Amino acid sequence: MREQDADGTGPRGGTGPEGGSAPEDAPRRGFSRRSLFGLAGAGVVVGAAAGGAVGRATAPDNSAMAGTVPFRGAHQAGIVTAAQDRMHFVAFDVITDSREKLVSLLKTWTSMAERMSQGLQATQDGATGSGEYSPPDDTGEALGLDPSQLTITIGFGPGLFAGAPVTPAEGEGRFGIAARKPAALEQMPRFMLDALDPARSEGDLCIQACANDPQVAVHAVRNLARVGFGVVAVRWSQLGFGRTSSTSTGQETPRNLFGFKDGTRNIKAEDTDAVDRFIWVDGADDQPWMAGGSYLVARRIRMRIEPWDRTTLHEQERVFGRDKGSGAPLGQDDEFDPLDLQSKGPNGLLIDEDAHVRLASAEQNGGIRILRRGYNFTDGSDGLGHLDAGLFFIAYCRDPQKQFVPLQDALSRNDLLNEYISHVGSAVFAVPPGVSSGDDYWGSGLFA
Amino acid sequence: MREQDADGTGPRGGTGPEGGSAPEDAPRRGFSRRSLFGLAGAGVVVGAAAGGAVGRATAPDNSAMAGTVPFRGAHQAGIVTAAQDRMHFVAFDVITDSREKLVSLLKTWTSMAERMSQGLQATQDGATGSGEYSPPDDTGEALGLDPSQLTITIGFGPGLFAGAPVTPAEGEGRFGIAARKPAALEQMPRFMLDALDPARSEGDLCIQACANDPQVAVHAVRNLARVGFGVVAVRWSQLGFGRTSSTSTGQETPRNLFGFKDGTRNIKAEDTDAVDRFIWVDGADDQPWMAGGSYLVARRIRMRIEPWDRTTLHEQERVFGRDKGSGAPLGQDDEFDPLDLQSKGPNGLLIDEDAHVRLASAEQNGGIRILRRGYNFTDGSDGLGHLDAGLFFIAYCRDPQKQFVPLQDALSRNDLLNEYISHVGSAVFAVPPGVSSGDDYWGSGLFA
Repeated sequence: MREQDADGTGPRGGTGPEGGSAPEDAPRRGFSRRSLFGLAGAGVVVGAAAGGAVGRATAPDNSAMAGTVPFRGAHQAGIVTAAQDRMHFVAFDVITDSREKLVSLLKTWTSMAERMSQGLQATQDGATGSGEYSPPDDTGEALGLDPSQLTITIGFGPGLFAGAPVTPAEGEGRFGIAARKPAALEQMPRFMLDALDPARSEGDLCIQACANDPQVAVHAVRNLARVGFGVVAVRWSQLGFGRTSSTSTGQETPRNLFGFKDGTRNIKAEDTDAVDRFIWVDGADDQPWMAGGSYLVARRIRMRIEPWDRTTLHEQERVFGRDKGSGAPLGQDDEFDPLDLQSKGPNGLLIDEDAHVRLASAEQNGGIRILRRGYNFTDGSDGLGHLDAGLFFIAYCRDPQKQFVPLQDALSRNDLLNEYISHVGSAVFAVPPGVSSGDDYWGSGLFA
Repeated sequence: MREQDADGTGPRGGTGPEGGSAPEDAPRRGFSRRSLFGLAGAGVVVGAAAGGAVGRATAPDNSAMAGTVPFRGAHQAGIVTAAQDRMHFVAFDVITDSREKLVSLLKTWTSMAERMSQGLQATQDGATGSGEYSPPDDTGEALGLDPSQLTITIGFGPGLFAGAPVTPAEGEGRFGIAARKPAALEQMPRFMLDALDPARSEGDLCIQACANDPQVAVHAVRNLARVGFGVVAVRWSQLGFGRTSSTSTGQETPRNLFGFKDGTRNIKAEDTDAVDRFIWVDGADDQPWMAGGSYLVARRIRMRIEPWDRTTLHEQERVFGRDKGSGAPLGQDDEFDPLDLQSKGPNGLLIDEDAHVRLASAEQNGGIRILRRGYNFTDGSDGLGHLDAGLFFIAYCRDPQKQFVPLQDALSRNDLLNEYISHVGSAVFAVPPGVSSGDDYWGSGLFA
């Protein structure tokens, strides 16, 4: 889980100034970043045990929460990875017209993301300067914390492909990539009841950082934002405090802020047929550079907590179409029992015609499925005496136009849940495939 | 840790509809809240093992994070309790002038807080109605979660004692308690550089909910807010994602968002002399009803993350007066080494005259100390391309006028850190003593 880094620095959790005994460490006050963040020069392998020894005394240390998720592979991590407990999501505007600066940042980000996923500081010692009179290479707030299964996932928004070209280039658009824009990458249409805030919508780039420790996720976003100075600016961001979906059969279904189990019928990583069919883009689908990638749809869904809490249990279960306690579909016994969409009880259909579970079902939507990977949020109060809380919905799919859009169109028209929710933010991103070996970087296929 | 509840319902994590086999459970669809939230009638003891068996597969389950903190005692829990990892804090306005309704709510809240601290649903089955045509007794999103060391702490703001009396009463003020207002309970003076937002300041009541699982803390606040409908309205709230202070010698010092270890010299629960001297109110101090209580000062401190991240390591360490890596005071080797406020190096004092650690030190402030219990926050972005992040500072002290005010006055004038932070919210609350046995309730001494 913890590997020796090329430059001799150890993992975040494994080394501090106390670990170093090389001569460079002599000024014990830590004015050298080498003594600050790593072992000075010497190639000492730091094992997991040593790392754990300086971990926080109260940090979660069971193996299900700790450790690292591999960064490289055919697909990016953070999609079918078993959903971590916490998330920090950020959307950026690209504020440069220089293709060179953008590509350079993507390369830097790739390297930093891989390092942070391994629990290392964001950049190598000396990468951004040298000595005590430079800013530290890493902001430091994750020092001593476990990697916590951090995954960092990037996406490209429609705006990246647009814009007026400053210098004429291959495919036009400000970065010469307009011709490579996938047809599937279109901003969402306006759905019924949408109440979107532009300040919480869209973006040229996004980063989804998920980890079991929120400080690790926040640290990752912040360090990427930091080195992006002059190239990108934060457009909006969202902290998610609790996962609302399982993406693995090994995970118990969590509850959303309405108290219901959410995402019972989600695609699970173990169902590789569904994963290949509904999540990963095939090279023949559209743009070849997207092969192995996916599309991310983000929706900030405000939940009207107070009216919901004054609603009867009967109404709540009618709205969802599930038993609140067990999560079983109405008329069934177990959470994972199949939906019975036809049977009637004394008051008509067991599962209401407009129940959320019916309208969202594959049965009702020509077999369509998506991978949900959302998080609960609570962002203070709204100034009217209510909690500003809800679901930061994230879905991955192979083609949002053919999967998310028809699903949401149906839901937005008739879902009983609509009385209690409001969509206030929306964004879509093309998520490129994973990074392979060597100098490969996020988006290398797009900019090749 | 998990005890059988008086009404036969088990702990949140311990029972689901599947657990019940009594006749009341016959309609398996879960339309009865008894079948929803507990065992129907039968007094079945649910052990920790059973509870764990239905816990989330990926939840932290090491003993340092799980379990319950005793609710009753001479002092409220959540003050010297080893600081949990997450926090949800809410300030309320009291919107009624009825003393009777206020006292009734405090009694209800006390009972709910005790139940939730034990991992039970917020109220007993049937307490707020009965049958499927009433709202559920509990909002449900913490079902199946561990109590996660939840503590719920209440405070009374200055506004509770003020206001025009509707009916003439003992001590005047709208609730007849004006004469019982402690002299120590005064809103903070305006400190230099304060940039306070009234919408994030003050309040008549506060609830601090701390737990190692944020969903458990959010659930607690939300259920208290819910039953307060018509009596209180949320004025502001704050989610803290990571603790920034240790309050026990068993905890490692965490890092703040500037990457520095924070609160190294904090009062620890084990130092009972300091706890008695600086935290707990003595009956002879002021108002007898506050004996065993304390005062809570909350400050929302925005951190200017981006300028800080472009500052040199040298400057960062000069500002704090500590080594960033080890946390040691400049000139020393170990985090817990004493401050050397006199020694000079080649460039003058080792610890700058205006370094944060010096100005905040007991040595510099006539021996004054406070208990810090703050949390990091990240609330999206500020619309200007910056993260809206910082420290939600919470301090407990025996007399804020004699402890926090002089400390903050000194810091606000000269602290080098002021270039990088801004105080944007402020509140103070009198925290009554703990609840004793029987029907005692929060504030019983005040309203006796």
